[in-house]
Amino acid sequence: MIAILKAGTSEEQKNNLCNWFEKMGLKTHVSVGDYQTIIGLIGDTSKVDIGLLESMSIIETVKRISEPYKNANRKFHTEDAVIDCGNGVKIGGGNFALIAGPCSVESREQIVEIAKSVKASGAALLRGGAYKPRTSPYDFQGLHEQGIDLLLEAKKVTGMPIVTEIMNVNDIDVFEPVDVVQVGARNMQNFDLLKALGRTKKTVLLKRGLANTIKELLMSVEYIMAGGNENVILCERGIRTFETYTRNTLDISAVPVLHELTHLPVIVDPSHATGISRMVEPMAMAAAAAGADGIMIEVHNDPEHALCDGAQSLRPEQFESVCKKVNKIREALK
Amino acid sequence: MIAILKAGTSEEQKNNLCNWFEKMGLKTHVSVGDYQTIIGLIGDTSKVDIGLLESMSIIETVKRISEPYKNANRKFHTEDAVIDCGNGVKIGGGNFALIAGPCSVESREQIVEIAKSVKASGAALLRGGAYKPRTSPYDFQGLHEQGIDLLLEAKKVTGMPIVTEIMNVNDIDVFEPVDVVQVGARNMQNFDLLKALGRTKKTVLLKRGLANTIKELLMSVEYIMAGGNENVILCERGIRTFETYTRNTLDISAVPVLHELTHLPVIVDPSHATGISRMVEPMAMAAAAAGADGIMIEVHNDPEHALCDGAQSLRPEQFESVCKKVNKIREALK
Amino acid sequence: MIAILKAGTSEEQKNNLCNWFEKMGLKTHVSVGDYQTIIGLIGDTSKVDIGLLESMSIIETVKRISEPYKNANRKFHTEDAVIDCGNGVKIGGGNFALIAGPCSVESREQIVEIAKSVKASGAALLRGGAYKPRTSPYDFQGLHEQGIDLLLEAKKVTGMPIVTEIMNVNDIDVFEPVDVVQVGARNMQNFDLLKALGRTKKTVLLKRGLANTIKELLMSVEYIMAGGNENVILCERGIRTFETYTRNTLDISAVPVLHELTHLPVIVDPSHATGISRMVEPMAMAAAAAGADGIMIEVHNDPEHALCDGAQSLRPEQFESVCKKVNKIREALK
Amino acid sequence: MIAILKAGTSEEQKNNLCNWFEKMGLKTHVSVGDYQTIIGLIGDTSKVDIGLLESMSIIETVKRISEPYKNANRKFHTEDAVIDCGNGVKIGGGNFALIAGPCSVESREQIVEIAKSVKASGAALLRGGAYKPRTSPYDFQGLHEQGIDLLLEAKKVTGMPIVTEIMNVNDIDVFEPVDVVQVGARNMQNFDLLKALGRTKKTVLLKRGLANTIKELLMSVEYIMAGGNENVILCERGIRTFETYTRNTLDISAVPVLHELTHLPVIVDPSHATGISRMVEPMAMAAAAAGADGIMIEVHNDPEHALCDGAQSLRPEQFESVCKKVNKIREALK
Repeated sequence: MIAILKAGTSEEQKNNLCNWFEKMGLKTHVSVGDYQTIIGLIGDTSKVDIGLLESMSIIETVKRISEPYKNANRKFHTEDAVIDCGNGVKIGGGNFALIAGPCSVESREQIVEIAKSVKASGAALLRGGAYKPRTSPYDFQGLHEQGIDLLLEAKKVTGMPIVTEIMNVNDIDVFEPVDVVQVGARNMQNFDLLKALGRTKKTVLLKRGLANTIKELLMSVEYIMAGGNENVILCERGIRTFETYTRNTLDISAVPVLHELTHLPVIVDPSHATGISRMVEPMAMAAAAAGADGIMIEVHNDPEHALCDGAQSLRPEQFESVCKKVNKIREALK
Repeated sequence: MIAILKAGTSEEQKNNLCNWFEKMGLKTHVSVGDYQTIIGLIGDTSKVDIGLLESMSIIETVKRISEPYKNANRKFHTEDAVIDCGNGVKIGGGNFALIAGPCSVESREQIVEIAKSVKASGAALLRGGAYKPRTSPYDFQGLHEQGIDLLLEAKKVTGMPIVTEIMNVNDIDVFEPVDVVQVGARNMQNFDLLKALGRTKKTVLLKRGLANTIKELLMSVEYIMAGGNENVILCERGIRTFETYTRNTLDISAVPVLHELTHLPVIVDPSHATGISRMVEPMAMAAAAAGADGIMIEVHNDPEHALCDGAQSLRPEQFESVCKKVNKIREALK
Repeated sequence: MIAILKAGTSEEQKNNLCNWFEKMGLKTHVSVGDYQTIIGLIGDTSKVDIGLLESMSIIETVKRISEPYKNANRKFHTEDAVIDCGNGVKIGGGNFALIAGPCSVESREQIVEIAKSVKASGAALLRGGAYKPRTSPYDFQGLHEQGIDLLLEAKKVTGMPIVTEIMNVNDIDVFEPVDVVQVGARNMQNFDLLKALGRTKKTVLLKRGLANTIKELLMSVEYIMAGGNENVILCERGIRTFETYTRNTLDISAVPVLHELTHLPVIVDPSHATGISRMVEPMAMAAAAAGADGIMIEVHNDPEHALCDGAQSLRPEQFESVCKKVNKIREALK
Repeated sequence: MIAILKAGTSEEQKNNLCNWFEKMGLKTHVSVGDYQTIIGLIGDTSKVDIGLLESMSIIETVKRISEPYKNANRKFHTEDAVIDCGNGVKIGGGNFALIAGPCSVESREQIVEIAKSVKASGAALLRGGAYKPRTSPYDFQGLHEQGIDLLLEAKKVTGMPIVTEIMNVNDIDVFEPVDVVQVGARNMQNFDLLKALGRTKKTVLLKRGLANTIKELLMSVEYIMAGGNENVILCERGIRTFETYTRNTLDISAVPVLHELTHLPVIVDPSHATGISRMVEPMAMAAAAAGADGIMIEVHNDPEHALCDGAQSLRPEQFESVCKKVNKIREALK
């Protein structure tokens, strides 16, 4: 870590600051230039509160040389992580997977039928919401434990491992049979939930918060990995911007940026990123072309509501078309 | 709720849609114009998933006439709510309060000294972090239960009710003696936590999420109030924008907007909104002028670290200056 | 256009409003429901100031049924436009083009050499800045007329039509020999410049402003097309968000959204969107996969500055790699 | 300027870089630490392209020690600038002014009547649009020269200096009799217009672009001041964020931030910042409390359209209320 002092800092102020650093167990290395003085800090600077330091009246700027995330850092793990998702399905390090299923689990018939359909099209994992985070308390909140049971039945029938979202630290036991535990965008900084998952060995699918930077996403990963759980998959699912035509703005550049910064796999959720079913296919193709390790897509299956083209969900035949095009792109780039 | 159909929608499609609404228990009222057809929906439309409806291929646009938040809605509660904060302190309906204290509770001496000091300057409530949400797992996470005990000691000495942040639904019992339970920006959509607080009678200080709209803030309030707890205070604490000079951007217009939409009191946190101690005074003054019902300010007290001007925290004498100026503005506007 | 009145609007207020509309030459069609009153407006509502209307105390909401852009609207032009870029190069309607060249034109040798190189790799158009919009007045502002002359020399040598940016309405004559006149992001709402270009027949490449919505981009197109010039190509080049890792955030979903809303071709500029040369290749591939009609890439050529990996510019061999991968994706999707 | 090299940079690469700097006429000062190497640059570093430098593969980070804006920099001008606005009206350095008038100049009667009214309430300057930047080419674009003539008539009657917006570099002569020439948000980076105004001595009111940072605003000021024109007033008028309830988000913290960074006066436009007339009064009060040097407010005057509460414009009696409250706040803070 480097601290650059403002012009005009007195010798006494500089010495006070150096003493303060040394009390924290850091060595200081002062370089006095014509225009500014630079203090280099050697030792474990992760304890230094950079916000506090930056706010000092004598500080021009502070720069951490090393990133504050260690476990997720590509620098220390040059090889891609390969994450086990159950039943032999892997993601990362060249292993690509399509994850598909309905927004909410509604009934045995619904989930089994969709599972068979998306498996036939090429999906490797089944997703479905049992616990639903809804902006309004008056909206349907999911089937809870029963929803997980129904997903497990669909797994038994199809052999597909299942992905579903956890919202409450107290539900970890209920999620024991779930293959991949999803932490949603709204909980990306629910640190107690992340810590609790870090104490398990469950594979965690961590979604980027809708207003969180890529660096913050990596710091949230760190909460899980610092507990000893290295089975983490990241998911870009759109960020909040001023544009209102799409529900969120898919930050497609997050895919190569995350691949540069971390060895963990990165998937994309074009359904939530755009909120418009017509945009799911082109965004899935863009994700494949940008190097995503997987794509998660909402698929519904309701012959009764045929007039509905399904908000952000695809119909099964639309999902099949996406699978084919994504495969073509992946083939072309081999 | 009104749904406007696209030009070219067939009679059959329109009838299918109307049948679908009627199955949900709604009455429909169709008005066929030269250029478009409008379906008015009568009944409890809170069950209608507006996102699903908007995505249908035959729908031009959908408009909810009534807001989906009921309990927090000014329309149904024309008088300002007055929220009891303990020890006779009230916020709202003309009752204004300054809330002050350190970022984190560190020791008995620290918190008691700051409490005495801010009380002398005019603060009515004492704030201090016991459970700290930190972006990095390697940063100080707070003193937890011990922090709450120290806040209670400061309360005993000064008589000031205390405000501190809860992060975990399992800590509700620990927060039993806390006067005002704060839900932080990162947990604004931690719905399980909101529901749990809704089942208590604790006064809740709910902070706006850093990328959440005003309407979403009101829907989160609804999670608390729907459970039967009407003791909620809202807090604007800055939103995330492209501007990087300040840590966040204080959305000062949220104060009059919230006063228009809800009867609940609205306070402002200029410390977190700007992240720069020099900006706290002018922003506190702006908040008072815009009609805030309270202002929450970080104050620290460390003679040893005198070289530090305290990130976003004020020194006690700076806080005293803020109090005086805020009072002058409030006097002027009486 | 539809205006929905607030509950409680008096008969007199409603009549006043209807009279006001009728004075503007509009016919009104009032539909009184149980919960609200709807006024449908028939006639040329493009004169109605929607902002003014929305602000009236008796108005609940206002909805334009028809989009305010006409000339660029896909509804009235179901076939893709094919835009002529000079020397037989076309963009749109299945015609795809790579546009490449340096940030700034610096010398004859530089621009001719880069032109030959990018042509050999597969670029169809040559770009290069002659007039440079720079945030700082102290930065290099370009070679101006001389820059255009050098681009024309490179065109003579290679046969590639040229693209370069105009900043000033008074330079239109100087741009007479330029094949494609670029309007940059900062000038997307420089309406006088757009109007002046609308009076010419020049092909215009209009970049999205860094904080402009897709709808605003289409309204700016309308300024050009309303003057009679239909030769417009749109360009997504990244928008400003809270994320700071990349210079801007590439809004890749703008490609299919624009293809849905307008018949005009849409290209992507991954160099400006990310500001990081390492991200140009994956973003170009994503753009091709999402259906872009062209991609514009900065390529530099400076053996002397070999230690530099070129900010957002690619080296010629990197550009060649991008061309090959983009072609593979386009082949795969045929 | 300081460049920090990545760990692992070879001696040869470091020397190449130093030679490159020295060719630019800079002196280098290398400090080799245990963990990184720092190169300090001495001389006129304004020529160094920081983006290029940051992109080099051997560079960890680059930091300009001195801000790139000189003329507008508070460091070199510790005293507040006092800007002459004509007819004895001054803004800055303790001189506060209210600027009021209609969105557009419509007729002699309209503008003279409003001018008299706002003067009586306490406005010092008259504003009114003659050239109007409109998102749609089909919206009213203003009366142009005739609008300026009408403003001058209102000036003759009331003695109030006038403020009106310029959009085209070719109109500078037409603006000769205008006291304060406004550059609107959309033209904040229309550099040719800024340069042209820099060659005059006109007082310029420069509005912040809706997606421009405070630093970019200061760099645009620099375009004007570098030409020799020091008569610049800055205006915060709301930025574009994800919040949609208000048209823009008033960045009230820009007032104290700009006062810290520059000696130029800073005014606030609450009408455009919120787009809602009901929010103008509380936002004007907040601006006064935050230390603004002036407030610019839209006031309309149309007895015929009495049913309209005027979008973002205030009625004369509402403006009078704002004036009184703003004065009370300013009195209180003396």
